[in-house]
Amino acid sequence: MLRREYDTQFCSIARALEVLGERWSLLILRDVMLGVRRFDDLVTNLGITRSVLTARLDFLIAEGVLKRDLYQEHPPRYEYRATEKGRQLWPVLMHLMQWGDEHYPAPGGPPRIAAHADCGGHPDAQLRCDRCGEPMGIRNTRVSSGRKS
Amino acid sequence: MLRREYDTQFCSIARALEVLGERWSLLILRDVMLGVRRFDDLVTNLGITRSVLTARLDFLIAEGVLKRDLYQEHPPRYEYRATEKGRQLWPVLMHLMQWGDEHYPAPGGPPRIAAHADCGGHPDAQLRCDRCGEPMGIRNTRVSSGRKS
Repeated sequence: MLRREYDTQFCSIARALEVLGERWSLLILRDVMLGVRRFDDLVTNLGITRSVLTARLDFLIAEGVLKRDLYQEHPPRYEYRATEKGRQLWPVLMHLMQWGDEHYPAPGGPPRIAAHADCGGHPDAQLRCDRCGEPMGIRNTRVSSGRKS
Repeated sequence: MLRREYDTQFCSIARALEVLGERWSLLILRDVMLGVRRFDDLVTNLGITRSVLTARLDFLIAEGVLKRDLYQEHPPRYEYRATEKGRQLWPVLMHLMQWGDEHYPAPGGPPRIAAHADCGGHPDAQLRCDRCGEPMGIRNTRVSSGRKS
């Protein structure tokens, strides 16, 4: 547990980790940005308890990282989406993915493949397309399963 | 606590967070990469207990993220350095710093300023120098205190 005195330390990394430094937060954000947006689907996909997920979602909404949209009125059903503030964390997730792919390779190859929507190239170390050179952000990147089905 | 079944999920982000997903890990790595390399200095700078720091350092060394160098023989004194694998997490820290600077601004301005060693420009959203366009990595970035002393 990070001591609260840490709040007074002058560091933007520390302040960012006050919001994100519990790994569920980044995994929830990953799921939501990759299209897993409903509570029950998040429970299933993450293997998280409903109470922990509720607490983390409430916190991320309070911090403005996620928002909750009503997608059905009777009965009310919500889905979760990343705000612009949340979407700005896309590079953090992509760099973590690259690092995991390189240093903790999965036996069957990369679990997910990020590709440039326009030309199909892949992100280099600066998250630019290795084929056409364009910066790859959340809007022009498609992430698909790397597994053969 | 992340359930161990998570190990079986196919996701490089999840695997990366198994190593890093405790915020001390990224804060220790930040300190070491910014030049705080000795055990006592890390204790002071992080406000972490000695036992927790020892456990986290041992774990990060076992994972090959940090290494321990003897810098004095009598009595033996060690300092901690990032390995190449650890240094590859530099973009994660820089993106977290940018995000923290933007969304959790410190009252007196950014606590730390990253500047391109060659021309003094600052990293843009793709971590390229906003003055000359060169990619800014750990080797050509200088981080200094943004506070007036």
